[in-house]
Amino acid sequence: MHPKQIENNHHKEFQIERLILFSDAVFAIAITLLVIEIRVPEIATSADTTQDLIHALLDKIPEFFGFILSFAVIGQFWTNHHRLFGLVKDYNGKLIWLNLLMLFWIVLVPFTSGLNSRYGNLNIVWQIYSANLALIALSLYFLYRYIGNPKNGLSDFAHDNVDRKYSFLRSSIVIWIFTLGGILASFDGIFFFWAARGIYFAIPILISIVNRRHQKAKTRQSHK
Amino acid sequence: MHPKQIENNHHKEFQIERLILFSDAVFAIAITLLVIEIRVPEIATSADTTQDLIHALLDKIPEFFGFILSFAVIGQFWTNHHRLFGLVKDYNGKLIWLNLLMLFWIVLVPFTSGLNSRYGNLNIVWQIYSANLALIALSLYFLYRYIGNPKNGLSDFAHDNVDRKYSFLRSSIVIWIFTLGGILASFDGIFFFWAARGIYFAIPILISIVNRRHQKAKTRQSHK
Amino acid sequence: MHPKQIENNHHKEFQIERLILFSDAVFAIAITLLVIEIRVPEIATSADTTQDLIHALLDKIPEFFGFILSFAVIGQFWTNHHRLFGLVKDYNGKLIWLNLLMLFWIVLVPFTSGLNSRYGNLNIVWQIYSANLALIALSLYFLYRYIGNPKNGLSDFAHDNVDRKYSFLRSSIVIWIFTLGGILASFDGIFFFWAARGIYFAIPILISIVNRRHQKAKTRQSHK
Amino acid sequence: MHPKQIENNHHKEFQIERLILFSDAVFAIAITLLVIEIRVPEIATSADTTQDLIHALLDKIPEFFGFILSFAVIGQFWTNHHRLFGLVKDYNGKLIWLNLLMLFWIVLVPFTSGLNSRYGNLNIVWQIYSANLALIALSLYFLYRYIGNPKNGLSDFAHDNVDRKYSFLRSSIVIWIFTLGGILASFDGIFFFWAARGIYFAIPILISIVNRRHQKAKTRQSHK
Repeated sequence: MHPKQIENNHHKEFQIERLILFSDAVFAIAITLLVIEIRVPEIATSADTTQDLIHALLDKIPEFFGFILSFAVIGQFWTNHHRLFGLVKDYNGKLIWLNLLMLFWIVLVPFTSGLNSRYGNLNIVWQIYSANLALIALSLYFLYRYIGNPKNGLSDFAHDNVDRKYSFLRSSIVIWIFTLGGILASFDGIFFFWAARGIYFAIPILISIVNRRHQKAKTRQSHK
Repeated sequence: MHPKQIENNHHKEFQIERLILFSDAVFAIAITLLVIEIRVPEIATSADTTQDLIHALLDKIPEFFGFILSFAVIGQFWTNHHRLFGLVKDYNGKLIWLNLLMLFWIVLVPFTSGLNSRYGNLNIVWQIYSANLALIALSLYFLYRYIGNPKNGLSDFAHDNVDRKYSFLRSSIVIWIFTLGGILASFDGIFFFWAARGIYFAIPILISIVNRRHQKAKTRQSHK
Repeated sequence: MHPKQIENNHHKEFQIERLILFSDAVFAIAITLLVIEIRVPEIATSADTTQDLIHALLDKIPEFFGFILSFAVIGQFWTNHHRLFGLVKDYNGKLIWLNLLMLFWIVLVPFTSGLNSRYGNLNIVWQIYSANLALIALSLYFLYRYIGNPKNGLSDFAHDNVDRKYSFLRSSIVIWIFTLGGILASFDGIFFFWAARGIYFAIPILISIVNRRHQKAKTRQSHK
Repeated sequence: MHPKQIENNHHKEFQIERLILFSDAVFAIAITLLVIEIRVPEIATSADTTQDLIHALLDKIPEFFGFILSFAVIGQFWTNHHRLFGLVKDYNGKLIWLNLLMLFWIVLVPFTSGLNSRYGNLNIVWQIYSANLALIALSLYFLYRYIGNPKNGLSDFAHDNVDRKYSFLRSSIVIWIFTLGGILASFDGIFFFWAARGIYFAIPILISIVNRRHQKAKTRQSHK
C-alpha cells in the first residue's frame, strides 16, 4: 500500500474506534448509574437498628433483582455491540446516527429500570420496561441490517449469507421476547405476572440453540 | 521516515487521541446525565396506583421532550466534533483550551436542560437554554476557525478553501438559529412561544441544503 | 506474517482493548461516584455557622474514612486488573462474561460503601461490605484462573507455573482476608469490631511478603 | 528491532495508555459531576414565576462562579497531566499509585467545590477548598519528580536539566499559591477575604513569566 493510503486507513480506523469508545463510555455510565437508583435506606438509630436495617434491605430485594436484570441486559447488549462493531471496516453519517439512536434507548434504561424497581408490581411499568428493552434490540437490529447490507460497504460480513441470517435471527429473538414480555404484562393475574417476567429466561436458551445451529452451518460452509 | 521521527509522530498522535477521548468521555457523561434529571415519580400506593402513575408520567411529557431534544443536540455536536477532529494533525496549548471552553458549555447542558424540563413554559428559560446551545455552537466555530487557519498548521483541511467555507457556513447556521430561538422567546404570545421552539427544526433542513451545495462544489473542484 | 493475518491480529487486539477500556470506564465511574455519597452538610446560617459546619464535617469523619478505604480498594483491584489483562493475548465470550461478573461487584461498591459510611458501627454492614469486596476478589480469581489455564489459549503466562502459582496465592490472600473481616464482624465487642476492620491492613503486608518470595523464585528460574 | 521486542514495546505502550485513559475518565467524570451540585431551583408556580426564577438564579451566582473556577482548575490540572504523561516511556507499580493518589484529590473536588458553592462566605470553607487544590498540585509535583528522576528510567525528559527545573518551578508556584490562598483565608476582614480568592489569578501570570524564561533558556541551550 501507498504510505498516504496507510495514513488514511489509520485515520479512518481511529474515527471508527472513537465512535466505538464513545458508545462504550455511554454503556459504562448507564450500567454504573443503575446502582444510584438503589438508595441507602434512611432509618432512625435505635436499640434495634440492626433489625430495622435488615428489614429495610429485605424490602429492597425487588430493587436488587431489577438492578441485576438491568445490569445483565445492558451487559448482553454491550457484548452484541462489541461483536457487531468488530465487523465494521468503515463508517458514515447514517451509521453514527443509527448508533446514537441505539444509545438513546440505552441511556433511558436507568430511568425505566428505576421505575421498575419502585413500582415493579404494576403491569404498566413492566410494559414500559419491556418496551425500552425491545427498542434497544430493534435499534441494534437496524444497525445489524445497515452494517450487513453489502450496498453500504461497511463490513466484510456483508457478503456472508450464513453469518447475516444468523445475526438477524438472534436480534429478532431478542426483539420478540421483550415485546411478548410487554404484551403478557397487559393481562391481569398471577400467571401472566410471572409469565411476563419469566419469558426473559427464554432468551439465553433460544440464543444457545441458534448458536449451535449456526456453528453447524458454518462447518458445512467451510467443508464445501 | 527516520525511526525516531516515526516514534515522535506516534507520540504526537496519541497526545491528540488522548485529547479527543477525554472530550468524548465528557460528551458521554453529559449525554447520560440528562436522564438523571427525569426522576421516577413518587406516588402513594392506593387502589388507583396505575392511573396515578400514568398521570404522573403524562405530566412528565415535557421533560421527555426536553430530554430527547438535548440528547439530539449533544449527539449532533458530538458528530461535529468527531468530523472536525478527524482533520486534526497536530495540537498546541491553545487548541486544548478552546476545546475545554467548548466542553464547559457541554457540561452545562444537563443544568439548562433540567431548567427547561422543569419550567419549559417560561420565556426566560428557553432563552437561557438557547444561549447555552448557541455558546456551544460558537465555541465549535472558534475551534473550526483555529484548526482551519493555515497559519496554525494543525490540519490539512486548512488549505482547502471550499471545505473551510462550508464548515464556517454550517457552524454559522447553528449559531444563528439558536440565537434566533432565544430572541423569539423574548416576545409574549403563543405564536412566538412555538416559533422560538419550532425554528430549531430549520437546522437539519438548512444543513442538508448546505451539504448538497458543498457536494456539488467538491465535484466541480475535482473536475478542474 | 501475512498482511491479512497482521490485519486480523490488529483487529483482535482492538477488540481486547475495547473490552479493557470499557472495564476501565466502569472502574473510573464507580471510584468517582464514591464521593457523591458524601453530601455537603445542610446547616442553618447563624452567628456560629463556622462552628456548626466544623462539627458537621467532624461528624462526617467516618464517611471520609469509608471513602478513602473504598477508593484504595477499587484502586487496588484496578491495578490487579491492569496487570492481569496486560497478559491477555486473546478473548472469547466466556472471558467477557467473567469480566462483566467482576464489574457487577465493582458497580455495587458505591452502594455498600455508602451503607458503611452511614451505618459503619453495625456488624451487619461491615459483613455486607466485606462480602462485596470478597466477591470482587473471588471473581478476579476466576478471571486469573480462566486466563491462566493453558487449555483456553488466552495468554502466554498460562505456561509459566511460577507466575500462575504466585497469582493464585495473591488472589487467595485477598479473598480470605475480606472473608475473615466479614466473619470477625459477626462477633460482638470492641475487640472484634476493630479486628474486623484492622485485618484489612494485613493485605498489603502479606502481599509484599508473597511478592518478595515470587521475585526470588523468578531469579532461581532464570538461573536454571 | 526484533519482532518480539516490538510486540513487547507495543504491549508496554498500551499498558501506559490504559493508565492514562483511566485517569482521563476520572478527570472527565469529576469535571462533569461539578454541574450536579448546581441544582435546578424549586419555586412555586405563581403570577411572578419568571421574577422568582430570575431571583433564584441570581442567588446562585456564587455557585456558578465556584463551578467555573473548579472547571478551570481541573481543566488546568488535566492539561498538566496531559503534558507530563506525554513524556512517560515506561511505568511501574509506584507510578500507578502516585497517579491514584493524585486522582484521589481530583475525585474529592466535586465535594469541596460543592461546599464552597454552598458556604462560600466562610473562611474555613475556602481553606478546605484551597487545601484540596494544593494537595492535587503537590501530588502532581511528586509525579513530576518521580517521572523526572533519571534513576527511575521512566522518561527521556529525566536527563534534561532545564526542562526538569522548569517543571518543578511551575508545580511549586501552583502549590504555594493555593497554600497561600488557604492561609490568607484564616484572617478576618474583607481585605483578606478577597486576597485569599484573588491570589489565584496570580497563577496564570506567574506561569506565563516562567514559560517565557523557560523558552529563552531552551533557545540558549540549543545554541550551545
